[in-house]
Amino acid sequence: MSTSPLRVAMVGHGFMGAAHSQGWRTAPRFFDLPLRPEMRVLVGRDSTAARAAAERWGWAESATDWRAVLERDDIDVIDIVTPGDSHAEIAIAALDAGKHVLCEKPLANTVEQAVSMADAAARAARRGVFAMVGFTYRRVPAATLARDLIAAGRIGEVRQVRASYLQDWLADAESPMTWRLDSARAGSGALGDIGAHAIDLAQFITGLRVASVSGTLQTLVGERPLLAESVGLSGTASSERGRVTVDDVALFTARFGGGVLGSFEASRFASGRKNALRVEVSGSTGAIAFDLEDLNALHVFDATAPIETQGFTRVLVTEPQHPYVAAWWPAGHLLGYEHGFSHQAKDFVEAIAAGEQPTPSFDDGLQVQRVLESVGASARSGSSWTDVEPNEKEERP
Amino acid sequence: MSTSPLRVAMVGHGFMGAAHSQGWRTAPRFFDLPLRPEMRVLVGRDSTAARAAAERWGWAESATDWRAVLERDDIDVIDIVTPGDSHAEIAIAALDAGKHVLCEKPLANTVEQAVSMADAAARAARRGVFAMVGFTYRRVPAATLARDLIAAGRIGEVRQVRASYLQDWLADAESPMTWRLDSARAGSGALGDIGAHAIDLAQFITGLRVASVSGTLQTLVGERPLLAESVGLSGTASSERGRVTVDDVALFTARFGGGVLGSFEASRFASGRKNALRVEVSGSTGAIAFDLEDLNALHVFDATAPIETQGFTRVLVTEPQHPYVAAWWPAGHLLGYEHGFSHQAKDFVEAIAAGEQPTPSFDDGLQVQRVLESVGASARSGSSWTDVEPNEKEERP
Amino acid sequence: MSTSPLRVAMVGHGFMGAAHSQGWRTAPRFFDLPLRPEMRVLVGRDSTAARAAAERWGWAESATDWRAVLERDDIDVIDIVTPGDSHAEIAIAALDAGKHVLCEKPLANTVEQAVSMADAAARAARRGVFAMVGFTYRRVPAATLARDLIAAGRIGEVRQVRASYLQDWLADAESPMTWRLDSARAGSGALGDIGAHAIDLAQFITGLRVASVSGTLQTLVGERPLLAESVGLSGTASSERGRVTVDDVALFTARFGGGVLGSFEASRFASGRKNALRVEVSGSTGAIAFDLEDLNALHVFDATAPIETQGFTRVLVTEPQHPYVAAWWPAGHLLGYEHGFSHQAKDFVEAIAAGEQPTPSFDDGLQVQRVLESVGASARSGSSWTDVEPNEKEERP
Amino acid sequence: MSTSPLRVAMVGHGFMGAAHSQGWRTAPRFFDLPLRPEMRVLVGRDSTAARAAAERWGWAESATDWRAVLERDDIDVIDIVTPGDSHAEIAIAALDAGKHVLCEKPLANTVEQAVSMADAAARAARRGVFAMVGFTYRRVPAATLARDLIAAGRIGEVRQVRASYLQDWLADAESPMTWRLDSARAGSGALGDIGAHAIDLAQFITGLRVASVSGTLQTLVGERPLLAESVGLSGTASSERGRVTVDDVALFTARFGGGVLGSFEASRFASGRKNALRVEVSGSTGAIAFDLEDLNALHVFDATAPIETQGFTRVLVTEPQHPYVAAWWPAGHLLGYEHGFSHQAKDFVEAIAAGEQPTPSFDDGLQVQRVLESVGASARSGSSWTDVEPNEKEERP
Repeated sequence: MSTSPLRVAMVGHGFMGAAHSQGWRTAPRFFDLPLRPEMRVLVGRDSTAARAAAERWGWAESATDWRAVLERDDIDVIDIVTPGDSHAEIAIAALDAGKHVLCEKPLANTVEQAVSMADAAARAARRGVFAMVGFTYRRVPAATLARDLIAAGRIGEVRQVRASYLQDWLADAESPMTWRLDSARAGSGALGDIGAHAIDLAQFITGLRVASVSGTLQTLVGERPLLAESVGLSGTASSERGRVTVDDVALFTARFGGGVLGSFEASRFASGRKNALRVEVSGSTGAIAFDLEDLNALHVFDATAPIETQGFTRVLVTEPQHPYVAAWWPAGHLLGYEHGFSHQAKDFVEAIAAGEQPTPSFDDGLQVQRVLESVGASARSGSSWTDVEPNEKEERP
Repeated sequence: MSTSPLRVAMVGHGFMGAAHSQGWRTAPRFFDLPLRPEMRVLVGRDSTAARAAAERWGWAESATDWRAVLERDDIDVIDIVTPGDSHAEIAIAALDAGKHVLCEKPLANTVEQAVSMADAAARAARRGVFAMVGFTYRRVPAATLARDLIAAGRIGEVRQVRASYLQDWLADAESPMTWRLDSARAGSGALGDIGAHAIDLAQFITGLRVASVSGTLQTLVGERPLLAESVGLSGTASSERGRVTVDDVALFTARFGGGVLGSFEASRFASGRKNALRVEVSGSTGAIAFDLEDLNALHVFDATAPIETQGFTRVLVTEPQHPYVAAWWPAGHLLGYEHGFSHQAKDFVEAIAAGEQPTPSFDDGLQVQRVLESVGASARSGSSWTDVEPNEKEERP
Repeated sequence: MSTSPLRVAMVGHGFMGAAHSQGWRTAPRFFDLPLRPEMRVLVGRDSTAARAAAERWGWAESATDWRAVLERDDIDVIDIVTPGDSHAEIAIAALDAGKHVLCEKPLANTVEQAVSMADAAARAARRGVFAMVGFTYRRVPAATLARDLIAAGRIGEVRQVRASYLQDWLADAESPMTWRLDSARAGSGALGDIGAHAIDLAQFITGLRVASVSGTLQTLVGERPLLAESVGLSGTASSERGRVTVDDVALFTARFGGGVLGSFEASRFASGRKNALRVEVSGSTGAIAFDLEDLNALHVFDATAPIETQGFTRVLVTEPQHPYVAAWWPAGHLLGYEHGFSHQAKDFVEAIAAGEQPTPSFDDGLQVQRVLESVGASARSGSSWTDVEPNEKEERP
Repeated sequence: MSTSPLRVAMVGHGFMGAAHSQGWRTAPRFFDLPLRPEMRVLVGRDSTAARAAAERWGWAESATDWRAVLERDDIDVIDIVTPGDSHAEIAIAALDAGKHVLCEKPLANTVEQAVSMADAAARAARRGVFAMVGFTYRRVPAATLARDLIAAGRIGEVRQVRASYLQDWLADAESPMTWRLDSARAGSGALGDIGAHAIDLAQFITGLRVASVSGTLQTLVGERPLLAESVGLSGTASSERGRVTVDDVALFTARFGGGVLGSFEASRFASGRKNALRVEVSGSTGAIAFDLEDLNALHVFDATAPIETQGFTRVLVTEPQHPYVAAWWPAGHLLGYEHGFSHQAKDFVEAIAAGEQPTPSFDDGLQVQRVLESVGASARSGSSWTDVEPNEKEERP
């Protein structure tokens, strides 16, 4: 690793901060990276908490003023893991300051913010400064394999998509409020938080984009105890109550380009489903099915195999021939959730070193944001079909 | 079995005729029935084919004129297994002739026909003559168990429903036309043929009714070779081509009474899925999941169990304590598809003997038909939400 | 079905009697048989019970004296479903009387009996009279498919076999005695009752025979309440207690011809496993895995497939191309436990009509009995390796 | 982390070196440890390779002479990840030098070596210096949960154990030799390498010890190409051939204390099974089943649940209430293979800090070695039952 450093500052330090930190720390150990990530500064609003988090997650220093960090010469990358309402401001300033940016999903809370961010990214890219949005599930080896198989024509023409992200941490009506249930902070609820993953993953795997949607949003439980103390994605309840201002279930039908139909669901009320991000793609000569709760496996159906042995094959995606896997353990030794963050770090660093646009780009993030907004618009107009406005790159100044 | 006979005539003798025959033949061997079914007459349009089918499936005689059979004194039950376009005429005549009727699903090809049938059933019921529609999947023990568990409050309040019926026999664009792809004969496509099962099963299991829908229908392959020879649900292709006039994919969102949301899909393009009628119900304290491709199992989640051992339990529904099972084999010995038809025969015979209305009634069948029609209407109006007209029993003459 | 009749008398009418009856009744409906089975006489020791069983299971008459039935000219086949201690006497007399014989497994309670039976079968075969032993699990389509795939070289050279039959109906130490726990009636316990199935199935699927064994038998619970009333395989307990005189767990290692190793287990104490007859065969280029608790599926691994999509394929064995399946329902419509008995009836009738030896023959049954005896002998001598004596057909008089 | 350091030197740097490094690096980030592990020195025979490995895996320096490292005052722990033939010499010297030792499994290649190691550990423990052997799979949360449930009586009395470790990397007869196939280096083959894991895990989960065994060893392919270049557990072949001097399949039956029977298999020829370490324990009122290929799940059967919903529950072991999990991610976010090494590091550090014996101890490792040796002895004497000599701690000088 006698390589040049890539000096990173991370803004925010919640659950995502831990995951990103683990990605930055681990990636250079298992992959031969062209630049050596250095975990320089962790930025948080509260100096005590930031200092503790920096020590905990292995950042050289901590800071409280992200604007000051942007002015430092010894920082190359800004990694944004704050809630969605602050993404636009930080990311645009960082890009304008010449820092590469990795920004957690969803890109922003509104399309307007996302457009500004994509514009800033376009301006920056012209100066060799790049931005990426953190849809890490693309980098689960089984998901990448699904994309590769479809791109190689292994299931023929794509015919139908089923995508859902099912969780149950709101199934208990007394489970407390968190910032994720407050539209001012989170923008939207199940739709933007987990539905965004389902949209991105379905588009990534199929190579198709959602063109129009007919959707429905619902808030099953409208009032909850306020949060006393945060634990995981939820926490303990206080005696006061607050109003849930986001959806907790989102259902929509999508038309992709080429007339392909898709069904989507995002729910936090799917009892017994903890983190079931599922995508099934039916093609003319095969199918793939993925479930994040069994993330080392991909189920593949091949309609061209001999009829007597056709069926879904459970591929354990742990062979050296599988995406990202050769860097890790022998066959049959499973990877976990956090490995996607190492893969993300690797791909980001490689793109930066090569002076190339990493993916998913802010344009990709914006496009997902447009789908989210169209679902909301459709839901507000009685589920009528609503077009997803395309990113009009050509008009970009 | 020194019981009185219940003399049955069956009209039609396709795939469903074989299944019904096996039900009539087998039910009295495993269940103590209050009346003894006798397989008297099989009716088919072609006398040679009808004679062969009667011999094959074990009916004492064959006939070609169902109207003549209705006039016979030695027939108590008319079992209708013809395509949907003839259901109304036969069923209404049979009921008016004082014959009990068991009619395959979907009840009819249109709501108008179904209303007439339900009216006829109501008239007949006042004379102690009863009609039932053949949604047999309710009688798969695991499905009945799901209903029982939910009725007993074992998953708390129902919050969400996911229902789908996935097949792939049209995935091959060269798979030939059959009467099931002709709207004149079949009424509708995937929606009416298999979607009807998903609707009935979801309603049966939850005890809730669909109140409104937002739906989308699609025909992915619009022209196919004409059928040369029938094999299973499909067959061999001729060189001529015909137009597919029914949907092959149906997607809809439903609101049940009480604000419960449901997502529905019926597809004949789901590569690798052969007969995947699936229903998952999320409740406030648990969930159930069923898949017809694994029909002896029910997956049950109990959120009130100790947290460290919570998860979906795969219940092998083969214990004597499970619905219908005690009559069959020891624990762990699986039942098959056709056992539902024995259970249907049993329940029908018991209701007739008791002078009670068997379920699902023609009203139940009509209600499913109304849901189907509302999905079609919604699809034609850009997926706008469309109410399902309730059965107005009170106005029945 | 204008075919000649094949007139059957069945001796015994327990759980197996119901299964065989259903096989005889159903087979001619779904398969075009060269002879038409007629269910003529059911024989039982108690005339009232026999009469009730005959009526229940659809036999034209009942009788109490099987010897008298053997003398009747209007009987072609004797179907033996009594406990193992009476198999030899009935089968030998029947064969000597010129009746074809279908005998439930295990063939007998001792090798001596089984040898006599095989000798009788050899004598009879020379006169065109045939005997078959009822290892029906060979005729589960997925098991037959496994055999076909291996015979076709689809997994290369067989390397290892894992076979087990796991049940749990004795896990409760207060579960009562039945005749199956009495060595005088049953011969042996888990080993002979369910282990025999595992042995036969493993040998059938691989085409290999067990040459020597090293085994261990154990009786985990030695005393149980006597049976008050029979329910399924078990029943309700009385207040008196009896001694369990058979094994309830059998474990053995087997060497097949060619140096292939196999591990075997038969247990009635495998909590949560209801009827898990499992066989996994590892070959040099693939593998198959079967589980009777999921009897419509076969798991197939192909090491010659592209490495990136290798894995176990869950083949739903319900396609018309699969063994026996074309006669039944469309793809994806599952078969149950009892279908094996229809397949057995079909294959038996076809062999009889063709004047050919049906399989498994009494020699096959004898060979399984020899394996069982060798396991017992090995267990008694400290698990030392014990050869399985080959059937010495050449010496047969 | 203003805690005192615990300064580690690691001897060896193959596949296990990467895993241990990741454990040392990651554990202090996610767990609050009483001592702060410092990755000081990596020791390897070849200085260039050692230096590269140190840089790759994040060790401050490298060295080639482990004896010199033992003399350094700034080293507290020796972590041994070399092949088994060198474990004894290094571990004994390290313990005698006052260094805590973590030693990979199997503890040694012979019982004699293991006894010396356990003696050294006993001597050291009296001076507050501790030794631990690296059976990390105990620390997969699902395996620890299994142990906890059984210890809490949740499956009643243990009745039977099924344990196997199935891999297939030798199924291809042309797969090359590695040190793992050379008895001089590896001691034994499948038995010692992976069977040792199955033994330890079964004993850990049940809390029972193997008292005697009846075993069989086999080498299915006796000659293989020599290794040209190492890749994962295997590598590319050269044109020369070498002799396989270890077993590739091991089968044995075990009696645990209390008369519990267990069946064990270790195989490298189980086509399609990549890393299937499986343990199923049948108890009088329940059962657990674990499979390392699905390491985030534990299957739990509870025979005391209502009969109609009994079955194996697939517990996703990712809740904060599960062992080790609270330190990681929200529910439903999976852990991978390497997390066991973080848990091992955590538990080791905590025991050292507390001045307590970490588990599994060298005595535990010795006992597994005794089981391995007894299996070998039994196999050499025709599978006769062979007692496992107990560790006679009392005689220790």
